[in-house]
Amino acid sequence: MSSSDIFIGETIGTAVLILLGGGVCAAVTLKRSKAQNAGWLAITFGWGFAVLAGAYLAGGVSGAHLNPAVTIGLAVEGGTEWSDVPLYLGSQLLGAMIGAFLVWITYYGQFRAHLTDPEILAAQPLEEGLVDQETAPKAGPVLGVFSTGPEIRNAVQNLATEIIATVVLVLGILTQGLNDDGNGLGVLGALVTALLVVGIGLSLGGPTGYAINPVRDLGPRIVHSLLPLPNKGGSDWGYAWVPVVGPLIGGAVAGGLYNIAFK
Amino acid sequence: MSSSDIFIGETIGTAVLILLGGGVCAAVTLKRSKAQNAGWLAITFGWGFAVLAGAYLAGGVSGAHLNPAVTIGLAVEGGTEWSDVPLYLGSQLLGAMIGAFLVWITYYGQFRAHLTDPEILAAQPLEEGLVDQETAPKAGPVLGVFSTGPEIRNAVQNLATEIIATVVLVLGILTQGLNDDGNGLGVLGALVTALLVVGIGLSLGGPTGYAINPVRDLGPRIVHSLLPLPNKGGSDWGYAWVPVVGPLIGGAVAGGLYNIAFK
Amino acid sequence: MSSSDIFIGETIGTAVLILLGGGVCAAVTLKRSKAQNAGWLAITFGWGFAVLAGAYLAGGVSGAHLNPAVTIGLAVEGGTEWSDVPLYLGSQLLGAMIGAFLVWITYYGQFRAHLTDPEILAAQPLEEGLVDQETAPKAGPVLGVFSTGPEIRNAVQNLATEIIATVVLVLGILTQGLNDDGNGLGVLGALVTALLVVGIGLSLGGPTGYAINPVRDLGPRIVHSLLPLPNKGGSDWGYAWVPVVGPLIGGAVAGGLYNIAFK
Amino acid sequence: MSSSDIFIGETIGTAVLILLGGGVCAAVTLKRSKAQNAGWLAITFGWGFAVLAGAYLAGGVSGAHLNPAVTIGLAVEGGTEWSDVPLYLGSQLLGAMIGAFLVWITYYGQFRAHLTDPEILAAQPLEEGLVDQETAPKAGPVLGVFSTGPEIRNAVQNLATEIIATVVLVLGILTQGLNDDGNGLGVLGALVTALLVVGIGLSLGGPTGYAINPVRDLGPRIVHSLLPLPNKGGSDWGYAWVPVVGPLIGGAVAGGLYNIAFK
Repeated sequence: MSSSDIFIGETIGTAVLILLGGGVCAAVTLKRSKAQNAGWLAITFGWGFAVLAGAYLAGGVSGAHLNPAVTIGLAVEGGTEWSDVPLYLGSQLLGAMIGAFLVWITYYGQFRAHLTDPEILAAQPLEEGLVDQETAPKAGPVLGVFSTGPEIRNAVQNLATEIIATVVLVLGILTQGLNDDGNGLGVLGALVTALLVVGIGLSLGGPTGYAINPVRDLGPRIVHSLLPLPNKGGSDWGYAWVPVVGPLIGGAVAGGLYNIAFK
Repeated sequence: MSSSDIFIGETIGTAVLILLGGGVCAAVTLKRSKAQNAGWLAITFGWGFAVLAGAYLAGGVSGAHLNPAVTIGLAVEGGTEWSDVPLYLGSQLLGAMIGAFLVWITYYGQFRAHLTDPEILAAQPLEEGLVDQETAPKAGPVLGVFSTGPEIRNAVQNLATEIIATVVLVLGILTQGLNDDGNGLGVLGALVTALLVVGIGLSLGGPTGYAINPVRDLGPRIVHSLLPLPNKGGSDWGYAWVPVVGPLIGGAVAGGLYNIAFK
Repeated sequence: MSSSDIFIGETIGTAVLILLGGGVCAAVTLKRSKAQNAGWLAITFGWGFAVLAGAYLAGGVSGAHLNPAVTIGLAVEGGTEWSDVPLYLGSQLLGAMIGAFLVWITYYGQFRAHLTDPEILAAQPLEEGLVDQETAPKAGPVLGVFSTGPEIRNAVQNLATEIIATVVLVLGILTQGLNDDGNGLGVLGALVTALLVVGIGLSLGGPTGYAINPVRDLGPRIVHSLLPLPNKGGSDWGYAWVPVVGPLIGGAVAGGLYNIAFK
Repeated sequence: MSSSDIFIGETIGTAVLILLGGGVCAAVTLKRSKAQNAGWLAITFGWGFAVLAGAYLAGGVSGAHLNPAVTIGLAVEGGTEWSDVPLYLGSQLLGAMIGAFLVWITYYGQFRAHLTDPEILAAQPLEEGLVDQETAPKAGPVLGVFSTGPEIRNAVQNLATEIIATVVLVLGILTQGLNDDGNGLGVLGALVTALLVVGIGLSLGGPTGYAINPVRDLGPRIVHSLLPLPNKGGSDWGYAWVPVVGPLIGGAVAGGLYNIAFK
């Protein structure tokens, strides 16, 4: 796989992943969106089909990792060269930032309407449940559109939840190599991965909002801190390491477990 | 592909697409429908399976574009002859009008019950959120069953949203040529496209109701203006150009992007 | 295909179709069910996966028509011998009755709890919207678990709705022959048909509850009239011809349309 | 298939099945979960995709039974050696217990928040509907996250419901052998089985919560009785035999029925 294939596939694929994934969070959260309050099923299916879109686009180009945890898992397992890892990770982070930026363009008016609503500002932090402990730092009222946050702030549990959820994801993707014919991520593989992500969201997303992908959280958080959004509040950098470190550990554990158990 | 294949496939396929797509809007909107208030998930899955039905029917006949944005994207990319484009577009518009007419037949009594309900007429425009700016022209109480409308009326943002959403759709369809075996739209390709449309609806549908297809909006709007519906109100022609121009630009952009990035 | 294959496949396949299809209506309707009030999406996906289960089971045995409208459509199209039609239809009706009977066994206690609840009996007919016109005959409080009923009782519109919805279904199934490799109903074909049924329910189910299958309505209605359910009320035989005649016409129209347009 | 393949595939596959299946029950039930009250559709899709994850992981290793009812059905049908049955069953029980333990880790803080909430403790048994008969033994407030319980406690009906639902499941899995190419559980087979489980949940899950798998109920119940959860209450051992015996009978009936009808 050429460097240019990796760069193009991972950047465009991750941008589409985050455009649709961040998009469904905007759709369900923001005022003046037709989908406001469409609920948890909408969010989990939205993220799943975001994976489908990204994986389908990038599958034939870069193998569609779209996620450093997947890249690390494949590197540990042996399917990806360690020397390609930095390019994969950099392209994914760039793509995630582009995707988050496109969410802002798509929902430009909705962000404005939401962030200038007096009721919402009074109730800040208004992402209900995002930061509901008295001791927690204030998170901005639309940060949940960009990044994840725990319902209960506890680094050990939050990390454990992200590790466990990521192991399930990456094991599933590695197993695909076992089920598929070896031509990389086929159409059916992309579909199963997408539904697996819906399932992980439904089942393991309750405590932390399931980052299970370092750039899915970090890229949009950077964009949140840079965008000229009125009254946007803090970017909760104190939590930012958990959805980066947890998935990276999960990806490595999945790669190792796969090598021990399935090879 | 013969002209007759294009005409038959695109007309019947688009008719079924709009019958089911408009149908789910009628089902969720109108009084005396068993599905009234079934919510945004019902609408997005309904439109997705509408695409599945249309694509499945027309796939082996005309390639199942069913959408001028797809036809333009394929023409820019090179997969469709420019000389075939007018026939594709005309057949799609005819099919969309037939589909919208069949929605009226299917929900005949529900339209009557809805449009003669005093409470609904008093609250006109009753498509909540369809036109909620004081300066906006009045839209009819069932126009949302036929055509899209923005939550916040802003031509630049509305156009941007439609362009972005259409680029995702058409890029996905073009990529299919990369993933599939070259026999046109296979069954699995139709399924993935359908789920992609569910995803686009969930993630990018909040601001404008995701036309992402010029005839999906224009065909039913013409039918709305012609049908003898009591108290139907205006057809909001002032907005009608956005869901036509936006998706056409999006299709062309996707075709160009595909040629640059994926070829 | 041998007579014994047709009999076994259609009887067992239709029994499973109606067990799961009637089951989801019971689950969502009856008191003391964990799924009570789970909504229209649950009903439409439940019926879709009921088709998947039946089609998957019977696909390799009898071709999995499971529906006289499909059998008639295939006979008109030429894929099924007219001489096999009576055996198909008889087996389907028998299977539908067995399925409805199994719904009663599965939800035995829930039926009792529902039909002896004073509040529910006072509000009879309690299937809200099933029969809400003053002139309509009384329908039993659990008839909706067994058979369909119109929201607005109008034979012409109800018939038109059932015809249109059945044409979409049967055209889709006939087209499968175009897409598949000719080995009858493959796994992917069963999946697409199932999702098509979800889509038809979401989009065209609002007015009549989408029988789109004569035995799906008639078989359970017969069982409703025979079962020793306390306070079950009438079986609404005045409407029973619509969901039989409409789908039969729809199936024949689809077969003819297919021969004219797609052959 | 080697003993080590059976052990590894069934243990890991069943652990993932129960981690995601129990996880969605925790997500929808517990306080301070983002998915609290996400509803019955979330639970049924969550369990379906849990099956997809487990079957996808273990399919190429052990054939992905993940369920003693499937193993018994395959042994009766002839596809699995009786001598392998004890190893399958033991691995499945071990995996189910590991999965339930991982649910506890993942939702550690949520369990604590839920079980120390005064309102919830006052309303005990708080799994609404789990045990609502006056004569029923008290069930713990989070037992529903681990194991199933009937809405109406009636051993005969509860057993009948579990048998019927399991027959549908196991017949579907056995039929797969008919539809697939004989390479065991393929990707498409795993997908159809997963959607079949969604369907069984939607349609037949209302009365008992559809164990349809002895270890899915027994493994987590054992873990519930062992875990140091505050105020967890009883494990309702009086009901525990029903979701073990019912599915085992259902699996055997399905194997026999398959041999008689489909061979």
